[in-house]
Amino acid sequence: MEAKARIEAALEEAVAAATAVPCPSRLAEAIAYAVFPGGGRVRPGLCLAVAQACGDPDPALADAAAVAVELLHCASLVQDDLPCFDDAATRRGRPTLHKRFGEPIAILVGDALIVTAFRSVAAHAVRSPAKVGAMLATLASAAGAPAGIAAGQAWESEPDVDIDAYHHAKTAALFEAAAVTGALAGGAEPAGWRAAGGLLGEAYQVADDLADALGEARRLGKPIHQDGGKLRPNVVTKLGIEAAGRKLDELIEQALESIPPCRGRDEVEAFLSATAARLYPPALRAAR
Amino acid sequence: MEAKARIEAALEEAVAAATAVPCPSRLAEAIAYAVFPGGGRVRPGLCLAVAQACGDPDPALADAAAVAVELLHCASLVQDDLPCFDDAATRRGRPTLHKRFGEPIAILVGDALIVTAFRSVAAHAVRSPAKVGAMLATLASAAGAPAGIAAGQAWESEPDVDIDAYHHAKTAALFEAAAVTGALAGGAEPAGWRAAGGLLGEAYQVADDLADALGEARRLGKPIHQDGGKLRPNVVTKLGIEAAGRKLDELIEQALESIPPCRGRDEVEAFLSATAARLYPPALRAAR
Repeated sequence: MEAKARIEAALEEAVAAATAVPCPSRLAEAIAYAVFPGGGRVRPGLCLAVAQACGDPDPALADAAAVAVELLHCASLVQDDLPCFDDAATRRGRPTLHKRFGEPIAILVGDALIVTAFRSVAAHAVRSPAKVGAMLATLASAAGAPAGIAAGQAWESEPDVDIDAYHHAKTAALFEAAAVTGALAGGAEPAGWRAAGGLLGEAYQVADDLADALGEARRLGKPIHQDGGKLRPNVVTKLGIEAAGRKLDELIEQALESIPPCRGRDEVEAFLSATAARLYPPALRAAR
Repeated sequence: MEAKARIEAALEEAVAAATAVPCPSRLAEAIAYAVFPGGGRVRPGLCLAVAQACGDPDPALADAAAVAVELLHCASLVQDDLPCFDDAATRRGRPTLHKRFGEPIAILVGDALIVTAFRSVAAHAVRSPAKVGAMLATLASAAGAPAGIAAGQAWESEPDVDIDAYHHAKTAALFEAAAVTGALAGGAEPAGWRAAGGLLGEAYQVADDLADALGEARRLGKPIHQDGGKLRPNVVTKLGIEAAGRKLDELIEQALESIPPCRGRDEVEAFLSATAARLYPPALRAAR
């Protein structure tokens, strides 16, 4: 099965389990709303691309990891949109989850998705304890505190922000986890893959800040100029558009260079290049 | 080490890891605020009491499970207090977490505690894969959807509430998980312990509803009459105070009867009895 189809099928299965009887019906509907239809599925795509580059010896475990990183990402989007964070009314061209289902359900969907992410990987603990133990530790680091998504969002409540720690926690950590869990599922040494994933994640953050600064309709269909208006620390406000564009080029180049030796190098390079190409805001893309 | 001291020491260690550098300082402070000082530590107490009744062959694993159930409980309290849920200003005699640190940090503390709960147990995956796999599945069921704490809170957003499913998910599921993970750490068959834990959890819920209905200052220091005012489904409004009091008696009796054969039966019975005794609201306690 092609990677995109594998990801959707695995997500369908995880969501079906989380929303089975006796799940309250609004919560069930909202969990599905948070996950489908998806955005780019970039993080699970990276996870499977790495697993496949390593020979994909355990597709079920790779799928479980891909599900986990995507569900953690979906949870973070639902939370980001809440009134006390970005207070966003739309995402991907439709009402945000709390606008559609209310704030209590939105907060509970976040919890349920985080729990389901861990359950997805933990289900393989008995047959692959070493890989699953390492995967769960990686996912926990990427999602929680002191340096995962929760910590990343929490930097926005600090009077003085360490912008590198902020961006790493909020974005790069989950990209690293996608690459690392993919490598673990592939039976490979994860250290080199962590670097590649982290660089792609950093590039993703810079691209997001650029798109915001350039005032373009964003790929995610959410309102623009969120970051500037909220005085959120941002690589573009720090470096300027020109330098941020060069930073994006460098990060993508470094990500490609950092791919560890593997049998499917061409395929994973193609995945990274295609993902990177989509990162450039249209105004910058034309110049490339 | 005595159970209470073990629980506090294990929680201190888990919180220290979650709040280490580079954790944003307000998030770190808030995570500690959510966990210390504790309430009754009833759930981790149950977990350790069961593990000890089974001989406590792996204290580190029992401690990890106790930490996990308590952190999941702390996360649920922080969320319960949020403006979109109970909108509570105080808990345990001090400002609720969102009153002290703001809503964004409160939501992120919930995430971080849930993640830390899973990390605590997952750390033992390599040396005890079967037990840890079963523990993680149990904790995920108790915390998420379709039938854990998140589902329990979500029942409050439904037009028609299944009161048994609601109470089981909101309260009994985590008591069951405490007993089951304690039994797993103790190397025992968990099924019988699940029943005992669930009955104690049901008793806990009935006692909470009774205390609310009787209008007494609650042990947790939070405002009374929350449930009635919000028209939340409640065993007392359904059965009346008299019948709810009899239900509490029955549940405690059943919990004691359901203790499976084990070498430390007297100790676990003493734990359940002492916990049950504290459940009776003062007005009912006098009559017993």
